[in-house]
Amino acid sequence: MGATTPASDRVRVRRVPERGAYDRATVDAILDAGFLCHLGFAVDGQPYVIPTLYGRDGDVVYVHGSAASRMLRQLAGGVAACLTVTHVDGLVLARSAFHHSINYRSVVVLGTATLVDDPAEKLRALEVVTDQVVPGRWAQVRGPDTKEDRATTVLRLPLDECSAKIRDAGVKDDAEDLDLDVWAGIVPLTTVPGPPVPDPDLAPGTPVPSHVSDWRPR
Amino acid sequence: MGATTPASDRVRVRRVPERGAYDRATVDAILDAGFLCHLGFAVDGQPYVIPTLYGRDGDVVYVHGSAASRMLRQLAGGVAACLTVTHVDGLVLARSAFHHSINYRSVVVLGTATLVDDPAEKLRALEVVTDQVVPGRWAQVRGPDTKEDRATTVLRLPLDECSAKIRDAGVKDDAEDLDLDVWAGIVPLTTVPGPPVPDPDLAPGTPVPSHVSDWRPR
Repeated sequence: MGATTPASDRVRVRRVPERGAYDRATVDAILDAGFLCHLGFAVDGQPYVIPTLYGRDGDVVYVHGSAASRMLRQLAGGVAACLTVTHVDGLVLARSAFHHSINYRSVVVLGTATLVDDPAEKLRALEVVTDQVVPGRWAQVRGPDTKEDRATTVLRLPLDECSAKIRDAGVKDDAEDLDLDVWAGIVPLTTVPGPPVPDPDLAPGTPVPSHVSDWRPR
Repeated sequence: MGATTPASDRVRVRRVPERGAYDRATVDAILDAGFLCHLGFAVDGQPYVIPTLYGRDGDVVYVHGSAASRMLRQLAGGVAACLTVTHVDGLVLARSAFHHSINYRSVVVLGTATLVDDPAEKLRALEVVTDQVVPGRWAQVRGPDTKEDRATTVLRLPLDECSAKIRDAGVKDDAEDLDLDVWAGIVPLTTVPGPPVPDPDLAPGTPVPSHVSDWRPR
């Protein structure tokens, strides 16, 4: 399981601490199950939270985007950031309003995001982010040319200070509420892919490759 | 459409500005389609981004949680916050790595989050948050008692400074890439509910009410 204590007090789960986990196997599994994070940073005391694609490569998470973006201009200098990934797994419907909740898996990574300027690491990071969205995609597509590479900024955030929080349980009603005439239970939620929609410019009859047709949320 | 210009430069969409929208009808539709936000705030210069439930009531968004939570203790004093809601609608698979993207709808709300201490507004806010997750649920359940009310903190964030960003389009490949032998297209993504799982303590044969069986992502 790895570390079962937080790397810092800043990432210690305070609210319902028994839902917290600090081992990298748990953190990595949650990160590897998604591709969209919410990245937080502050400018002049105002926090901003921006949805963006990410990819994990070992002990590092990469995010990428245009060099033109305000977010990346700010972060590129090496600034304090928070990267959060959340999967919603179900609605928890209790007999009391108070005990309503959701089942979820989330990871919070705190640290300093820094610009990736080594060309080999940058190319690797773009591969990691692309394959985090659709595993196997990078090997099939045209890689970035010089102009595209220049227009792309990649940031690195190490997994040194992170925590996971998971709720995966049934309804927790108070004993005195169990006889109320209220339906209680869980509504599971899943993300499902629809049939792939080919680009109109694709040659008719081009088969859908398995890395697309087999895509499933992890 | 309402305002088609941003309320402030802080919420102006910089990256791909044609995807930005500032009218409340667009913002409200995106907020009303979800129930989980990512709330950002900063403590000692470190940003934190926490997933939490929310509800919209007119010109205000409410979030709630335990008074014990670090997040709400910080924000309750009236602190700078950013509330972001994102719906992922599809994977955009281009012929070039550079033009990969996702289709999405997102809203960013900036402002000062303040504590709701008026009892009537607080109760209304809890109703709004509960019904944002499952419309019609509040009327069916036991409302908060004094102890639960005391254990709950509700925060208010006005919709004065907000923007929407939407990508809802096909693949945008460069003309010279169209003949590459690479499948390109969209994989639509949807969240679907599974069959409701009744709480084991529920009386056998208790019917699933329509507000649960009819639940769909909006």
